Amino acid sequence: MSYFDKTKIEELPSRYRANLINSISGYKSCNLIGTRSSNGIANLAIFNSIIHIGSSPAMLGFVLRPLTVRRDTFDNIRETGKFTVNQVTSVMVEQSHQTSAKYGQEVSEFEAVGLTEQYIEPFEVPYVAESALKMGCRYKNHYHIEENGCLLVIGSIEHIYFPEGVQDPDGFVHLEKLNTVAGMGIDGYALPKYLGRLSYARPESNPVLLKHGS
Amino acid sequence: MSYFDKTKIEELPSRYRANLINSISGYKSCNLIGTRSSNGIANLAIFNSIIHIGSSPAMLGFVLRPLTVRRDTFDNIRETGKFTVNQVTSVMVEQSHQTSAKYGQEVSEFEAVGLTEQYIEPFEVPYVAESALKMGCRYKNHYHIEENGCLLVIGSIEHIYFPEGVQDPDGFVHLEKLNTVAGMGIDGYALPKYLGRLSYARPESNPVLLKHGS
Repeated sequence: MSYFDKTKIEELPSRYRANLINSISGYKSCNLIGTRSSNGIANLAIFNSIIHIGSSPAMLGFVLRPLTVRRDTFDNIRETGKFTVNQVTSVMVEQSHQTSAKYGQEVSEFEAVGLTEQYIEPFEVPYVAESALKMGCRYKNHYHIEENGCLLVIGSIEHIYFPEGVQDPDGFVHLEKLNTVAGMGIDGYALPKYLGRLSYARPESNPVLLKHGS
Repeated sequence: MSYFDKTKIEELPSRYRANLINSISGYKSCNLIGTRSSNGIANLAIFNSIIHIGSSPAMLGFVLRPLTVRRDTFDNIRETGKFTVNQVTSVMVEQSHQTSAKYGQEVSEFEAVGLTEQYIEPFEVPYVAESALKMGCRYKNHYHIEENGCLLVIGSIEHIYFPEGVQDPDGFVHLEKLNTVAGMGIDGYALPKYLGRLSYARPESNPVLLKHGS
């Protein structure tokens, strides 16, 4: 059994600690956030911290590292109030990962990594054409996490696009049919295989498999 | 192409909207949070909102629904200051899902669903014996998300346990070797297949695959 206590965690080399701690919370979502500066330069950045916040109203959130270095994504979101969220699929993992390189502020990561800006009326912020599921979002708020200076950014979901034929009748979207990937640690990627859905849990009965994997 | 705009999202039947919006943020972590009330009753609840907050200090967070109904997990965390996080693996999906049933406050979900309380010194809060990766955490803070009344709870990671032989030399943990599952939507489960890790991205070079899938 590997065991790390608080002291051992604190004394680890920082890169090792970052890989370990980033791994153990479990699988992560894997999305590209698209923005546009007020002078028209497109920006694209990979995030593995996008989470569901609520359905009514429809909102998501993501964690941004401390603002001690340039954060084009956040600056652009504050300027325009808008961003897109684009799922990373298995055919675009390398290009998506490459958006994490520190390009200059005047460089569009779309061009640099070879992904395609897509504008869909009425949204003037770019989606990623190659992405199978994309959302247009509006900035709502952000929360400063005092413990380490990170921000939790909250956005409302105002536009959703994905191909026909990937939903269950009750609204559930089969991400595996879109080849959406999951994140592992800082730099790992995985392709999930669907196992099934389980019925609403009640104390008096055991869960029933609603729909098997294919 | 399926398209939902803000108005269409708002007008969806609430269950359909919940399934849709919960699906589209991408894959989610899947963990059981173990707590214990001040009078000694163990509690266990599944969460798909646990996220990495930071490595130094090592912290994680999770989103809790509004406190308009009984939230044993949060009450216990506030009472004792401690909780455990236990990854859900493919052999324990049904039991883990069943913890979401509304059992009475005096019922231990461990007993009700058939998972085993495990106490590891010096922590007096139960881990899940069946889980392959588990953490002992201390409550640090919580943030009230004004937009919908949810809470983001922040904990520090003070104890980490997992089997030998699942790490890369640089600290990365191979969740696929533990059969850790990912969450989909509200009630879906998936088993990810490892694709690989990519090298640190730099503007002047393309990412290199560090380690292939097996």
